Amino acid sequence: MAQAPVADIFAGKYSVGQQVTVKGWVRTRRDSKAGLSFIALHDGSCFDPIQVIALNTLNNYVDIQRLTTSCSIIATGVLKESQGQGQSLEIEASDVEVVGWVENPDTYPMAPKRHSLEYLREHAHLRPRTNVIGAVTRVRNCLSQAIHRFFHENGYCWVSTPILTASDTEGAGEMFRVSTLDMMNLPTTEQGQIDYSQDFFGKETFLTVSGQLNGETYATAMSKIYTFGPTFRAENSNTSRHLAEFWMIEPEVAFADLSDIAQLSEDLLKYVFKAVLAERADDMEFFAQRINKEAITRLEKVIDQDFVRMDYTDAIEILQNCGKKFEFPVSWGVDLSSEHERYLAEEHVGAPIIMQNYPKDIKAFYMRINDDNKTVAAMDVLAPGIGEIIGGSQREERLDVFDRRLEEMGLSQEDYSWYRDLRRFGTVPHAGFGLGFERLVAYVTGMQNVRDVIAFPRTPGNANY
Amino acid sequence: MAQAPVADIFAGKYSVGQQVTVKGWVRTRRDSKAGLSFIALHDGSCFDPIQVIALNTLNNYVDIQRLTTSCSIIATGVLKESQGQGQSLEIEASDVEVVGWVENPDTYPMAPKRHSLEYLREHAHLRPRTNVIGAVTRVRNCLSQAIHRFFHENGYCWVSTPILTASDTEGAGEMFRVSTLDMMNLPTTEQGQIDYSQDFFGKETFLTVSGQLNGETYATAMSKIYTFGPTFRAENSNTSRHLAEFWMIEPEVAFADLSDIAQLSEDLLKYVFKAVLAERADDMEFFAQRINKEAITRLEKVIDQDFVRMDYTDAIEILQNCGKKFEFPVSWGVDLSSEHERYLAEEHVGAPIIMQNYPKDIKAFYMRINDDNKTVAAMDVLAPGIGEIIGGSQREERLDVFDRRLEEMGLSQEDYSWYRDLRRFGTVPHAGFGLGFERLVAYVTGMQNVRDVIAFPRTPGNANY
Repeated sequence: MAQAPVADIFAGKYSVGQQVTVKGWVRTRRDSKAGLSFIALHDGSCFDPIQVIALNTLNNYVDIQRLTTSCSIIATGVLKESQGQGQSLEIEASDVEVVGWVENPDTYPMAPKRHSLEYLREHAHLRPRTNVIGAVTRVRNCLSQAIHRFFHENGYCWVSTPILTASDTEGAGEMFRVSTLDMMNLPTTEQGQIDYSQDFFGKETFLTVSGQLNGETYATAMSKIYTFGPTFRAENSNTSRHLAEFWMIEPEVAFADLSDIAQLSEDLLKYVFKAVLAERADDMEFFAQRINKEAITRLEKVIDQDFVRMDYTDAIEILQNCGKKFEFPVSWGVDLSSEHERYLAEEHVGAPIIMQNYPKDIKAFYMRINDDNKTVAAMDVLAPGIGEIIGGSQREERLDVFDRRLEEMGLSQEDYSWYRDLRRFGTVPHAGFGLGFERLVAYVTGMQNVRDVIAFPRTPGNANY
Repeated sequence: MAQAPVADIFAGKYSVGQQVTVKGWVRTRRDSKAGLSFIALHDGSCFDPIQVIALNTLNNYVDIQRLTTSCSIIATGVLKESQGQGQSLEIEASDVEVVGWVENPDTYPMAPKRHSLEYLREHAHLRPRTNVIGAVTRVRNCLSQAIHRFFHENGYCWVSTPILTASDTEGAGEMFRVSTLDMMNLPTTEQGQIDYSQDFFGKETFLTVSGQLNGETYATAMSKIYTFGPTFRAENSNTSRHLAEFWMIEPEVAFADLSDIAQLSEDLLKYVFKAVLAERADDMEFFAQRINKEAITRLEKVIDQDFVRMDYTDAIEILQNCGKKFEFPVSWGVDLSSEHERYLAEEHVGAPIIMQNYPKDIKAFYMRINDDNKTVAAMDVLAPGIGEIIGGSQREERLDVFDRRLEEMGLSQEDYSWYRDLRRFGTVPHAGFGLGFERLVAYVTGMQNVRDVIAFPRTPGNANY
């Protein structure tokens, strides 16, 4: 008999009185003195398990009474309205097949008790079986699907920019080297340097830190593109907000200026927040109950509010005059730190802020110089409760201005020859931003640590599994 | 005025007589003796450019007469039914703003003439501006969206399995090493080996060749998952079917056997082929006209036909008795080569084949041993015109059988301890497959070389851009 996903049963796709077969894992089992067992079966399709009632008339009732958490079973029976509290439907089993037992249930790492998130991280291959990581996985999937849908509905092309690259987008992030050279027998040049001409790609190669520059080549042909892929930072950052490997979404839009992509960032966030509230109400309820009681309300608030546009220069003035003591002093030209961003978003405005027009000296070479010649058309989206969640800019499309900037920053035209070509041949104003996917999932779920919102986190000293 | 995507105009979202603004690039321009210019403007949103008619009464008509391929313009005017042949709608411009010129049009690499695909590859940053790569980009996007949609509608969770890994899925593919060690100053152990404990992750680390093993950990908790991400092979294969960096889709399904995922592969391919025929008719028309005249008909055929299930053992018999001379001789136990696969799919059956139950000695350690103890529950989908497009298997879920297989193959239980845990704790039959995304795009478009269906191909000696 075909399998009925538990989510479909709760969604009313089967009627009371109908026979159904469910396949999944035991979350808990309790026996009643009346000679029956209640099995909570989950199959990952939704937050709640379904209750399977096994009567002692089943010929393998002895086995059933030995079921422990994570044993796999196939249960067939009639769908009934539930007598007990909690779920509305349950299954009165006519057959319960035990498919897989759990070895030594007493020492099973995912035994049914409260585990710390740190402990779960150390058992990353088993943690999707828990309530919390199961819920994260569904919400992460929902967000990813909503992001693809949003861009597709709005005429964007998904472009997969390269993971392996010989260029460095910003000169900012530390990069991982990728090589097939024999480490015990490295070829060297006459000058005594490593001879990367003998490496797989014939030159020194790294993992990408951003798909933006490549993305611009497609935006200036297809008009609207986005990337959604992994990016890498070889930084020794052991924080709750950093991963060595993380996924990033980077839209890039031709004929767009800073204000257009500020609007795009607002539209995108509102769209995906609405999707997750509508499609994953069960999981969000759990996050609100157990992880962050504002998980739902703060998303609702973001959806209802207009994002506030604020110039960096105005923000500095606000911070200087707010009478609050900050750890890092504020003056025009400094990069805002987390305490400043949070004060502005949470206390001063109480809504997401789109901060715009930063000093050019703290921003990347490709950002468009404003007429004041001191600031660039950059923007960050600062959300209450998490800080910076999106960073973007209008790109410098004027070849002469771009070349002056390269020179100022000591970068060579030759290294950026293909990027310069976009400015030589039919250049257009264009703009885009980057959204760190794990930070988004963390924000939506209320999970404190990005290591808990990606299946197998990569951090300094950890590439397990 | 807001921008009207050309695709929206041809889709009838604007009415004749309405004023519209289009933004894009000149494909061609020709001047009429009657004192007007016809500009074909494309913006990447669909295959066809829209014709913009500029009269010599425009005050910058002198500039307009200097427009060349790839100049960027913004044109505003009234939408009219077209008098000429070809497109149904055109724009009579009241304003044409030149946004970006093309430097030295005579030497512009994408000048409007027939370029070879090899030439376009050497200008990968400009080639999306061509008809052919623009069409590939839209079809690739359409396929990717359809894949996500298919899995989402069928209750699958997208899981991002790790790119950086310390394990090797099959021991089969050559892997790229990822490191931050100083190559000029490598730390060594007392035994004179490279001391990877000092590397970023504290051990030797590689780029993944497959997300399957990690995917299984999530399938055995969420029931139905899929990956869609980049994978890597450090193989010196300079063929039209190999890339060092390519994208792969890997569904993994709990409580599924070989026959279930054979069906899944058929359903998935039919779904995405239907999507591309429905949504990208314009681009597919181009591929049928210019790249492969069967581009559309062969997809229609696949949609209409039942895939033929065939056992490897039967296939060997057919090949041995077909009276055809093959370059590679056929006997039970050999891996089928491309000539065999194509004979079976194209000549013998004339439909896609799902080849099943291969000899265990030519397949990976994780595949489920059949009762004959000679074959494994593996399957490949062989499509007429391309050969193998999908490879999958039921996984060995029985711990004792799995351990014997590890031993037979000289692999250690310790290296696979977390993978073994899935068999120790609530094991279930499960199965999955891998679909190479670039091979799919090549098949759909009829493009001969996978290097032309990914934005920036990575191959031996080439990581440009």
